[in-house]
Amino acid sequence: MRAVDIIMKKRGGQELSHEEIAFVIKGYVEGSIPEYQVSAWLMAIFFRGMSPRETADLTELMLHSGKTMDLSGIKGPFVDKHSTGGVGDKVSLILAPLVAACGVKVPMMSGRALGHTGGTLDKLESIPGYKTGLSEAQFRDFIQKDGFAMTGQTAEIVPADKKLYALRDVTGTVESIPLITASILSKKVAEGAEALVFDVKSGPGAFMKTHEDSRALARSLVDTGTAMGKRIVSVITDMSEPLGAMVGNFFEVEESIDCLEGRGPADLMDVTLRLSAWMLVAGGAARNVEEGVEKCKAALASGKPRELFLDNVKTQGGDVERMLSLRGKYRSAYSKKLVAKEGGFISAIDAYKIGLAGVYLGVGRDKTSDPVYPDVGFIFEKKVGAAVAKGATVATVYGKDEASLEAAWPLVESALAVAREKRAPAPIVLEEISAL
Amino acid sequence: MRAVDIIMKKRGGQELSHEEIAFVIKGYVEGSIPEYQVSAWLMAIFFRGMSPRETADLTELMLHSGKTMDLSGIKGPFVDKHSTGGVGDKVSLILAPLVAACGVKVPMMSGRALGHTGGTLDKLESIPGYKTGLSEAQFRDFIQKDGFAMTGQTAEIVPADKKLYALRDVTGTVESIPLITASILSKKVAEGAEALVFDVKSGPGAFMKTHEDSRALARSLVDTGTAMGKRIVSVITDMSEPLGAMVGNFFEVEESIDCLEGRGPADLMDVTLRLSAWMLVAGGAARNVEEGVEKCKAALASGKPRELFLDNVKTQGGDVERMLSLRGKYRSAYSKKLVAKEGGFISAIDAYKIGLAGVYLGVGRDKTSDPVYPDVGFIFEKKVGAAVAKGATVATVYGKDEASLEAAWPLVESALAVAREKRAPAPIVLEEISAL
Repeated sequence: MRAVDIIMKKRGGQELSHEEIAFVIKGYVEGSIPEYQVSAWLMAIFFRGMSPRETADLTELMLHSGKTMDLSGIKGPFVDKHSTGGVGDKVSLILAPLVAACGVKVPMMSGRALGHTGGTLDKLESIPGYKTGLSEAQFRDFIQKDGFAMTGQTAEIVPADKKLYALRDVTGTVESIPLITASILSKKVAEGAEALVFDVKSGPGAFMKTHEDSRALARSLVDTGTAMGKRIVSVITDMSEPLGAMVGNFFEVEESIDCLEGRGPADLMDVTLRLSAWMLVAGGAARNVEEGVEKCKAALASGKPRELFLDNVKTQGGDVERMLSLRGKYRSAYSKKLVAKEGGFISAIDAYKIGLAGVYLGVGRDKTSDPVYPDVGFIFEKKVGAAVAKGATVATVYGKDEASLEAAWPLVESALAVAREKRAPAPIVLEEISAL
Repeated sequence: MRAVDIIMKKRGGQELSHEEIAFVIKGYVEGSIPEYQVSAWLMAIFFRGMSPRETADLTELMLHSGKTMDLSGIKGPFVDKHSTGGVGDKVSLILAPLVAACGVKVPMMSGRALGHTGGTLDKLESIPGYKTGLSEAQFRDFIQKDGFAMTGQTAEIVPADKKLYALRDVTGTVESIPLITASILSKKVAEGAEALVFDVKSGPGAFMKTHEDSRALARSLVDTGTAMGKRIVSVITDMSEPLGAMVGNFFEVEESIDCLEGRGPADLMDVTLRLSAWMLVAGGAARNVEEGVEKCKAALASGKPRELFLDNVKTQGGDVERMLSLRGKYRSAYSKKLVAKEGGFISAIDAYKIGLAGVYLGVGRDKTSDPVYPDVGFIFEKKVGAAVAKGATVATVYGKDEASLEAAWPLVESALAVAREKRAPAPIVLEEISAL
């Protein structure tokens, strides 16, 4: 078998066998197939796609390139949620203790901020003392204790994805549905979850800008995950404006606690409840999504999810008292008001521009080695659809220094649009694809 | 400027600027852009193509990655011919002295056998003593002396093509019209020719299997070469059966001398005269192709081309007496007859299969490091269209040893087809595209 023949077969639009995909993936991880052949193969996949069978084979092969998390001995069910990335998306922080409070275990492995999108690990680490680099033993222990745990991926999990993703990033082969599917699914399946709920973001602030592209990814995740024997739901949610009212690392921790205390913004709570409800259905803790939503609302009213969250913060090394005392106060000294230049109704707060501006402010990063800051970001007083008077404050923007505010400002200002007429707000949950 | 952005631009089907193409080519040659980005870029070009302007820019940039031959001080005109490669294609050996005899200088740089196609350098080196690795000074001197010289490419000529071709070969990005165009044209323009005649082979034994693909390459060569200020003609010729009656290294030298003595097979002479005539037109030595053909026929009748060929053999170190004495005798001891299994008319002698069988016999090679042999190959007694009785000899096949004949035999036998009805033979010159 020769790599060049496999490249040409895919280039010609033919379906590759399991052996052929294995030859490339194993050869790449072991170093016998050079990067220049793999990148040509990836570009051929970009143009020709992959069948559901090929995508499942690729995912399986990537999964088995490394270790998988062993959750045996712990009572399940284990269900996780994964978001394709957005701005202001702090759903994981609320959903994990909420679902755990309803009796479904959540083994959550998250990522970091990159580009315009935020990262759950960075948000959690803005809590003084909080540690996300858990050992496998700690991860198991903490799940047993609180029903969930929050960690990053270890180097042993899906090494093929780390190598492939780094190569895709520099060769223009990121935006491929089968490659994205295999990358996401291999990592989530490696966590040990039996069922997965995907939050596929759609809109300017998402990776997938159109509903059509989001649906293609959502379906591919459902089809491929199902072919691998997992129970899968994909929920497509709107990411045209930032989710909730706060964007920033500690800012989003704060808003998450608000949600756990029953005072969360409507859009954020809608998405969180819907995703959590699907997790309960996937874990057998609710018969249908409507019952799941009711159970989650009841759990929130009981205060149990908040307790579990605070307990997890303590368990993972965080200073709970300090965290609670910092609410409303952990703000950079450098701030600026975003005001409406004319009166009317807010017609857009472009999530992509807000996310990019956040990189300047210190919320996110361009390169994985850049630092992020806890006390910077956006606090919105108004969301899309709200009436606004000329000169009224729409948001307060915090930066790591004066220069960062200045650099971010053109993006911040251009993100806001005000119209004469009020437009009916778009629904936040756009579509649900369930294979339960 | 970032390579990944240039890859993505081409991936999206956009036209690249001269600066962007230069960034990739210069970066690749200098080592600042890694192979894995270049191969992804090449695959994107495979799928998206290049505009005539992009192709001309790429060709120009490749050309200027190295030295170009300096023919100043020698009286022109300088016209060269290039074939895209075939089986039994010894046209260069006949055409170079023929065109030189008509007053047009031919600075010919040729290649070696690879895969199923033969190589002019290997054929010339089957002449005892003949040397093809000329210095620039020798190349100039010999052109001045005999009106033509035969050499290989030096490492200084178009180094970008050497790197790119090696990468394309292992990444499934060979079969791209703009990449093939830039590779061929950059090398031919570097030779110093003012005008070029391309023999674009078409059919099973050619690189381009269909007339449509051949026409696309022929047009691309004409358009791109014209954009670079050269006078270009592309002639599309049939390569379904081997050209002439002999396939092999010294075998083809022999047949070339036969042609120079006026005893060449019809198909080979037709192609040679047509290509030579276009070279005379391109070099201003004939007003049109018909006059060119008449001048070539007259030159052949004068014996001058044969004299120039023998003189060139001597000039380039060859033993003329020995060469002439070996005619009809330089045959391997290992041979086998290909006979017709049924009577009728020969309907096909598949040039691709004959070429591949030649690799086993020792005519050609799989890898550039493999040796080739002078005294092996095919001598056909009959060509397509000929009547054949059951059991009659169609060809004698010579191999480097018994095992090579055995290995080649299934291919040899399957190359021959005999039909009940005689089919009208296809024309050998299929189409001519001139930008003179």
